[in-house]
Amino acid sequence: MNEKPDERRLAWAYLSTVAQGASRSLSAAIDACGVLEVAAAIRSGSPRDEFASRYAVRAHLDTAADDLERLGRVGGRLVTPDDDEWPAWQMLGFGTLDTATDAEGPPLALWVWGSRRLDELAERAVGIVGTRAASGYGEHVTAEISGDLAADGWTVVSGAAFGVDAAAHRAALGVGGATVAILACGVDRAYPAAHTTMLRRISESGLVVSEYPPGTTPARYRFLARNRLIAALSGGTVVVEAGWRSGARNTAAWARRLGRPVMAVPGPVTSAASQGCHRMIREGEARLIGTARDVVDECGKLLERDDDRDAHFTRALDGLSGDMAMVYEAFPGTGNCSPTDLAESAGLPADRVRAALPMLELEGFVESTDGGWRRT
Amino acid sequence: MNEKPDERRLAWAYLSTVAQGASRSLSAAIDACGVLEVAAAIRSGSPRDEFASRYAVRAHLDTAADDLERLGRVGGRLVTPDDDEWPAWQMLGFGTLDTATDAEGPPLALWVWGSRRLDELAERAVGIVGTRAASGYGEHVTAEISGDLAADGWTVVSGAAFGVDAAAHRAALGVGGATVAILACGVDRAYPAAHTTMLRRISESGLVVSEYPPGTTPARYRFLARNRLIAALSGGTVVVEAGWRSGARNTAAWARRLGRPVMAVPGPVTSAASQGCHRMIREGEARLIGTARDVVDECGKLLERDDDRDAHFTRALDGLSGDMAMVYEAFPGTGNCSPTDLAESAGLPADRVRAALPMLELEGFVESTDGGWRRT
Repeated sequence: MNEKPDERRLAWAYLSTVAQGASRSLSAAIDACGVLEVAAAIRSGSPRDEFASRYAVRAHLDTAADDLERLGRVGGRLVTPDDDEWPAWQMLGFGTLDTATDAEGPPLALWVWGSRRLDELAERAVGIVGTRAASGYGEHVTAEISGDLAADGWTVVSGAAFGVDAAAHRAALGVGGATVAILACGVDRAYPAAHTTMLRRISESGLVVSEYPPGTTPARYRFLARNRLIAALSGGTVVVEAGWRSGARNTAAWARRLGRPVMAVPGPVTSAASQGCHRMIREGEARLIGTARDVVDECGKLLERDDDRDAHFTRALDGLSGDMAMVYEAFPGTGNCSPTDLAESAGLPADRVRAALPMLELEGFVESTDGGWRRT
Repeated sequence: MNEKPDERRLAWAYLSTVAQGASRSLSAAIDACGVLEVAAAIRSGSPRDEFASRYAVRAHLDTAADDLERLGRVGGRLVTPDDDEWPAWQMLGFGTLDTATDAEGPPLALWVWGSRRLDELAERAVGIVGTRAASGYGEHVTAEISGDLAADGWTVVSGAAFGVDAAAHRAALGVGGATVAILACGVDRAYPAAHTTMLRRISESGLVVSEYPPGTTPARYRFLARNRLIAALSGGTVVVEAGWRSGARNTAAWARRLGRPVMAVPGPVTSAASQGCHRMIREGEARLIGTARDVVDECGKLLERDDDRDAHFTRALDGLSGDMAMVYEAFPGTGNCSPTDLAESAGLPADRVRAALPMLELEGFVESTDGGWRRT
């Protein structure tokens, strides 16, 4: 982790500091022009450049090398879309949001504290969130569900807040499982301060994650953006307890927008801490669950193949377009092939083939195997 | 109540004793031939007669006059489809069941104890049912919901069992509201015996009801048949607590079959007494509710007119057939008309017009007003 950061990583770190959060247009510019080029344009401050003018006020904040170096000394690093461990699959959902604002995009890059690989932790992950004012019942049920999921190999993702979040992290730690805390501030800032020890323990067996550069302080809008990352890095989100108006409902709404199952735990109708959960269940926004097994049933559905999905599949096949259609057509009817084979058959550059394959896999058309890729 | 029963009421009482429950074929025979004729046929024991042979074993049990007389002395009576207070509207649902067995029909007649009119009590009624092994939480929530509904003028219908049922009846009595107990035995038999006083109090301000003649003892199949009457006489059914396998789910299933809203109260996922409710909510069999206001919202929807209902309405109109279609066509575009007017226009006997009108009203096509009937 202490090797000298390369030029591209410095550019990502610089843009992360300048942007202070996600920007769909900035991501699009990077996709189109390259991260070095966009960073240079903003740094140069050319008034004719859209991003330069937009980020002019922070364009001089080139703390990237320092940030990477300081964070590296304590076991942190920056994970970027260039890296193998970038959770690309989890970020695909952002591409399908047609009503998203510019800030509701995928994170530019993720600052992480801990040595586990982010993509591996996010592979089988469940978000468990809820009110800071959890009841004894809420903390008990959180611990049961989180502990059982973590013992079963699921990563428990939450926000390190008081109440349900902390109970979820602690139960996962307690069974020696993996847990990911996503912060609304820099990963070098323990927030809340009372959770300093818990966050350190999380960094030892899981990851502490933020899209904000080191030193960033928490702010209300960053908590909302953080909720979106909890939803994105989880295969499904469980709300254990939530008041009538609760941040947990925001996380749940993000999970829904990203096409992930949303679950809620019921409780006594006499308990204010369960009103938000009951409201979500009643309105059809969340499915009632009570145990880790229920959660696995719900999240497992994402991967299930049933008749409905087959029907969907046939319709979706007709709707494939662009690179995805060309790459899919390039597959042999049976057997494995490599991206290079496919690039040749399809007459596409290899990087565009490699970009299309995970999307085809997400849609269930192809799968990756030890011997390469094949049609499902 | 002590006037001499007429010949038709004696025939209904006789058939109630002979049939010992509902029979769709017996009801159909009565509709077609008349109650006196069917009673005479069974009484005569003619071997060529379907019903005579089926009911031969009980054909000699002509205790009708005795039953009516004895029950009348303590404030009971037999309500039959001949009577104005027969809850005809509530029984219509049985006509639309295409998978019902012979015993899953409307009751032939209803034995009642108490002086209130059955149709008035059933007009705004909610069934509140649940496990005999209710928790303290379950009894508390039952009492809250039942008391609030009864205070708001709703009749609370239940089965007089221990646990949730008793809490529902008692809360309604406690606010001076109306409550109906439906028994799986004769209304002269207090069952369970521990509820003798409660049943007497119910008879004083509401009604104790059974489709079984006086003297009938409880039996397992009668409890299931009783559940169907709770559902039929209620505009919606609430399950407060129910174990994983529970009689209350049977009542809820009947409410669903009859097209009534089914509601369930959540509780702690750690409580066995809430597992059946959670299961129903999770499976989409019941809607989560927590208060009397929620119940009124759900039951009120039956009467609401919204866009969905309008769309449904247009489709349903295309599907009208038989007398209902002819009567609907006979209406003028605007203004009121009488059944006699409609009979003339439609070229149908007046009694068939009068039978079709409540069904058209149920479907929302027409409504009765002070000045007669009109299209909605």
